[in-house]
Amino acid sequence: MKSDQVPSFSDIKEAQKVIAPFAHRTPVLSSTSINKITGSELLFKSENFQKVGAFKFRGACNAVMSLSDEDARKGVATHSSGNHAQALALAAKLRGIPAHVVMPENAPKVKVAAVKDYGAEITFCEATLPARESTLAEVIEKTGAQMIHPYNNAYIIAGQGTAALELLEDHPDLDVILAPVGGGGLMSGTAIASKGIKPSIKVIGTEPELADDAYRSFKAKKLIPLDATTTIADGLRTSLGTLTFEAISEYVDEIVTVSEEGIIAAMRLIWERMNIIIEPSCAVPLAAVLEKNIDLNGKKAGIILSGGNVDLDQLPW
Amino acid sequence: MKSDQVPSFSDIKEAQKVIAPFAHRTPVLSSTSINKITGSELLFKSENFQKVGAFKFRGACNAVMSLSDEDARKGVATHSSGNHAQALALAAKLRGIPAHVVMPENAPKVKVAAVKDYGAEITFCEATLPARESTLAEVIEKTGAQMIHPYNNAYIIAGQGTAALELLEDHPDLDVILAPVGGGGLMSGTAIASKGIKPSIKVIGTEPELADDAYRSFKAKKLIPLDATTTIADGLRTSLGTLTFEAISEYVDEIVTVSEEGIIAAMRLIWERMNIIIEPSCAVPLAAVLEKNIDLNGKKAGIILSGGNVDLDQLPW
Repeated sequence: MKSDQVPSFSDIKEAQKVIAPFAHRTPVLSSTSINKITGSELLFKSENFQKVGAFKFRGACNAVMSLSDEDARKGVATHSSGNHAQALALAAKLRGIPAHVVMPENAPKVKVAAVKDYGAEITFCEATLPARESTLAEVIEKTGAQMIHPYNNAYIIAGQGTAALELLEDHPDLDVILAPVGGGGLMSGTAIASKGIKPSIKVIGTEPELADDAYRSFKAKKLIPLDATTTIADGLRTSLGTLTFEAISEYVDEIVTVSEEGIIAAMRLIWERMNIIIEPSCAVPLAAVLEKNIDLNGKKAGIILSGGNVDLDQLPW
Repeated sequence: MKSDQVPSFSDIKEAQKVIAPFAHRTPVLSSTSINKITGSELLFKSENFQKVGAFKFRGACNAVMSLSDEDARKGVATHSSGNHAQALALAAKLRGIPAHVVMPENAPKVKVAAVKDYGAEITFCEATLPARESTLAEVIEKTGAQMIHPYNNAYIIAGQGTAALELLEDHPDLDVILAPVGGGGLMSGTAIASKGIKPSIKVIGTEPELADDAYRSFKAKKLIPLDATTTIADGLRTSLGTLTFEAISEYVDEIVTVSEEGIIAAMRLIWERMNIIIEPSCAVPLAAVLEKNIDLNGKKAGIILSGGNVDLDQLPW
């Protein structure tokens, strides 16, 4: 596998072996009352119970564990203020190599503390994309660390695809599978895995209206980057990369968008009816079902619940 | 088994068979980071994932399903504004018999709606204990329904004990088991089941300082009822009954109390580290561990997580 090419189904099966000693095989949950409300049978692959509280650990773990000893020696590096930073820090710690994380100086203290807790070395920079990229370049120049992109990387995509692979191993009779789309790593991996294991399955991407670059890119058949966005689904405020755009164009059947109110309502419904904590980005697929942007009547659908890292002091209700 | 005598271990094993077709065998969860913080190995029996979101379904289900056809025909009745009302309503619905629930006229709308949703007939009354009891007496007089007390009933106690039974079946190597004490149904069942399956286990009850009637009754060796209390652990604002006091006196090794701040901190820790939703009452055992009222250093302890029904608009932080 090359890191700059779309991974294949067999790359995902390989990733499953690579991460098996480290990642949780997360539970698949269901809710009688949500099934009643939606008129469908929904199965939730609960990555909010994954290590670091999000699917991101799968990709980071696959990327870190797949490095040659030679490449791994000088560590890994990324810029992120989110779940990828924690995931990469933990994966590096498990391999016993350094992790260098560039974070904006206004990153939430709790996130900085979590990344530090996993033993990563943090370099702060201004909170702009150019500053983050140039600071990361300096860190890599200085340390010789391997850059691990949060989504535009074949090992990351293959790792994220293992969640859908597990879900379809447990429930081969799904008619449809849904995931949220941010940078597209989870969506790409989900689509490649799902079509690989079951070509007849319908793969649907779901996105906030306020961050609909994948929806527009998919329709226009060309990569259209996202403008700045304020969507509450903070994990989805990124644009597709070249690799994830290519994978989504090939393997995804449809992309639908949802309102901000719909995201909050779906998030709250999952909290109330399932007694589990999910982050706003994670509620986007159920929001699409509830807003009836997808016809699931009588069907059996899998939803990847992407993560549960939410600030309990900043709840949207 | 007589409903007004403390049940035996074999009554709990019988209850397990009775409720098996209806109740969830809930998962046992753990958290690496909470283990690290407490220096012990904690296993959480997660009744927040039980039907109606609380262990209460076990007892209500056992009580309803154990009625003779003759007794069941006219239905069941209780007064409650909490989880017992929902649990009894669902159990009655599953048996196909009427449930009559007396609720105070100021009961939260969401709880009234939930009880109605399960098909129970609700009679409203003034929000005082005498009004609730006299209204319930009238309802029973009129309908001939069987009164099912929320905790001072052997079938209820035996049903609640099945959670600990399952936990110890899954993890026979526990040194200690902890549960919260309100009316004492869960604590009694937990203690009888635990000592029955493993006589060497230490059974510890945990209670808010602001609702310490079990603590004081246990020490004084006589039933001392609770004065009005404002503890945030609203499920524990009840006094022990005669039956639960007898069972706790016989089978529980120790009762400890915790502060209100400790309850909130433990609740938040479980939300943050485990990504699951629990109600304040449910956080009391972990609060006792965190406040170092119990020495668990190096030990393996089971905690019954009692329930997850919480008002998301009224969080304590």
